[in-house]
Amino acid sequence: MIDPQRILVVGSVALDSIRTPYGEVTEALGGSASYFSFSASHFAPVSVVAVVGDDFPHRELFLDRGVDLTGLETAAGRTFRWRGEYAGDLGHAHTLETQLNVFAEFHPKLEAEHRRAPYVFLANIDPELQLEVLSQMRKPTLTLSDTMNYWIARKPDRVFEVLRRVDIALLNEEEAKALAGETHLARAADKLLERGANAVVIKKGEHGALYHSREERFITPAYPVTALTDPTGAGDSFAGGFIGMLARFGRTDGAALRQAMACGTAMASLAIESFSPQRLIGTNPGEIETRVRSLHGMVHYDLFPMF
Amino acid sequence: MIDPQRILVVGSVALDSIRTPYGEVTEALGGSASYFSFSASHFAPVSVVAVVGDDFPHRELFLDRGVDLTGLETAAGRTFRWRGEYAGDLGHAHTLETQLNVFAEFHPKLEAEHRRAPYVFLANIDPELQLEVLSQMRKPTLTLSDTMNYWIARKPDRVFEVLRRVDIALLNEEEAKALAGETHLARAADKLLERGANAVVIKKGEHGALYHSREERFITPAYPVTALTDPTGAGDSFAGGFIGMLARFGRTDGAALRQAMACGTAMASLAIESFSPQRLIGTNPGEIETRVRSLHGMVHYDLFPMF
Repeated sequence: MIDPQRILVVGSVALDSIRTPYGEVTEALGGSASYFSFSASHFAPVSVVAVVGDDFPHRELFLDRGVDLTGLETAAGRTFRWRGEYAGDLGHAHTLETQLNVFAEFHPKLEAEHRRAPYVFLANIDPELQLEVLSQMRKPTLTLSDTMNYWIARKPDRVFEVLRRVDIALLNEEEAKALAGETHLARAADKLLERGANAVVIKKGEHGALYHSREERFITPAYPVTALTDPTGAGDSFAGGFIGMLARFGRTDGAALRQAMACGTAMASLAIESFSPQRLIGTNPGEIETRVRSLHGMVHYDLFPMF
Repeated sequence: MIDPQRILVVGSVALDSIRTPYGEVTEALGGSASYFSFSASHFAPVSVVAVVGDDFPHRELFLDRGVDLTGLETAAGRTFRWRGEYAGDLGHAHTLETQLNVFAEFHPKLEAEHRRAPYVFLANIDPELQLEVLSQMRKPTLTLSDTMNYWIARKPDRVFEVLRRVDIALLNEEEAKALAGETHLARAADKLLERGANAVVIKKGEHGALYHSREERFITPAYPVTALTDPTGAGDSFAGGFIGMLARFGRTDGAALRQAMACGTAMASLAIESFSPQRLIGTNPGEIETRVRSLHGMVHYDLFPMF
C-alpha cells in the first residue's frame, strides 16, 4: 500500500559550485529534487525520481532523512554539474557553466509504486518530460509543477499544457510575466488563469509569494532573513514546504493552502541561510513551527469596523 | 479646543503634468499635501500647511472634503509645478521639469491652533523644514515623516535627525536602503532602528509595506490593483490612510498599527487608479472598508499546530 502522504518529486540531483558575496562551495549537493526532498521530508515521506552519475557521493544524506531513493537511477557517467555566482543583492544567478552529463538523457520511467503517489512535484525539467510523468500517474490527489525561463522561451505551448494539467503551477514573478506576456503581476496572474491554469503560486523572492485561483487569493510575505547566504534552491524548498504541509494533513482547502504558503516560505528562508541544503537537512519541527508562527504573527490581525 | 483627531500635514500643493502609458494630464492637482489630505480626510479632520501661488485654482476641492485650509498660504507668484512621466511597469517617475516657484521660499509658520494638532505628517520637504515644524509642535500624540532620495543624498544627517525625532518614519525601499547603506531590506530596516529611528514603515510599491520597530514587525501586501493608471501620490495616500486610521480611533497599539497599514495600502491602491487625487476625492467609507476587508482576507488564516 502506498503511503497516503507520499510525495513524488521528479527533477534534478546535481553537484553545484557556487560563489556568493558570503562564500563559495565546490561540487556541493544541489539540484531541484534535492532541495525539494530535504524540505518536504520534514512534513511527509518523499520519493525521488531523478538520475545521477556513478560519481555521485551524497546518497547517504537522503537516506538519513528517510527519503526513498528507489527511483534515483545511477547511470554510467558523470552527475549533472552547475556552476554559478550571485552578486549584489543576490537577485539573480549568473550561470558560468552547465554540464548536463547523465541528465541529458533523463527520461523518467516510474515504477508502479511511484505512479500511485498521491502528491507529485514536477520540478523545472523539460515540460515534455513533465507531461510524460503526468500521463504515468494514477489519480494523484495534488500535482504541482515548476518551470523556468528557458522552457518558457523555447516551449511556451508545452509549458501552458503543463499548467492546464496540474492542480497548481509554481512560477517566479519574471516567469509569470514572461509566460503571460504582461508587465504587471496581478494582470499576469489573471491571464494565466484565463489561459487555463487551475491555480498559480507566484514567488517574488524577498517580496513573498501569492496564490491565485478562481476561488482564492492569498498573499504571504517572505520571512525577513538577515543571514542570507545563497539563494539557490529557494523555489524548490518553497515547493517542498508547500506540498509537504498539504500532504501531511491530507487537505487542499483554503485554510490549509494558506498555511502551506507559510510553510513554503519558512522552508525557503531556511534554505537560503546556507550553501547547499545544509540548513534544510539540519532543521527540525520546532524550528520550522517557530518560523511559521513568526510569519503568521507578522501578517495576522483582527479586523475591526472603521466607519 | 483642538479636535482630538485633528491631523496636520506640512508639504507641497502643486500642479502636476503627467504622462503614463494610460493617459496624461496637464496642470492637474498634485503635491504631497494634496494626496495626503484627500486620503486622510475620509478618516479624520485634516489641516494643511503649505503654500500656493495666486494662480492656484483648486481650493474648492479641499473645502468640499472639509479640509482646513487656514494654513494654506497664498503667495504672490506661481504655484509649484512638476512635470514627469512613467514608462514600462510604472516603477519610476522620470522628472521632466520642476518649477519650485513660490515653494522655493516656503517656511512653514504654524498658527497656535495648528501647533496643538495631535497627529502630524511631515511630507517630503527639506528635513530642515521638517525639524522646524517639529520644534513648533506642542506635544503631538503621533508624528510621521516622509523623505526622498534628494534629501538622503544631500542632507543625510538631517534626515537621520528627523527619523530620531518622529515616532514613525515612512520611506520607500530604495530610500531605506540608501539611507542605511545596505542592499538587503531586512538589514536596512534593522540599521535604521540602530541609528535611532523609533519605527519605520518601508513602502515597497506593488510588493506591499512593512512596519518595523523594536517591539513590532508587521508586513502587509499591496492591494492587487489591475486598473493602475498613475502611481504619483501613492506614498502620501498611504500616509493619509495610515495616520488617518490611528487618529480616528486614537490608538497607536499594535493591533491598530496593523489595521492602519491596511488602510494606508487601501488608500494607495485607490490613488493609483486615476490621475491626480480623483479617486481619493470620489471614494467613500464603504469602498474603503471593502478594500481593507479584501486585503485582510488575502493574508488572514488561523494557524493550526503542525508537528
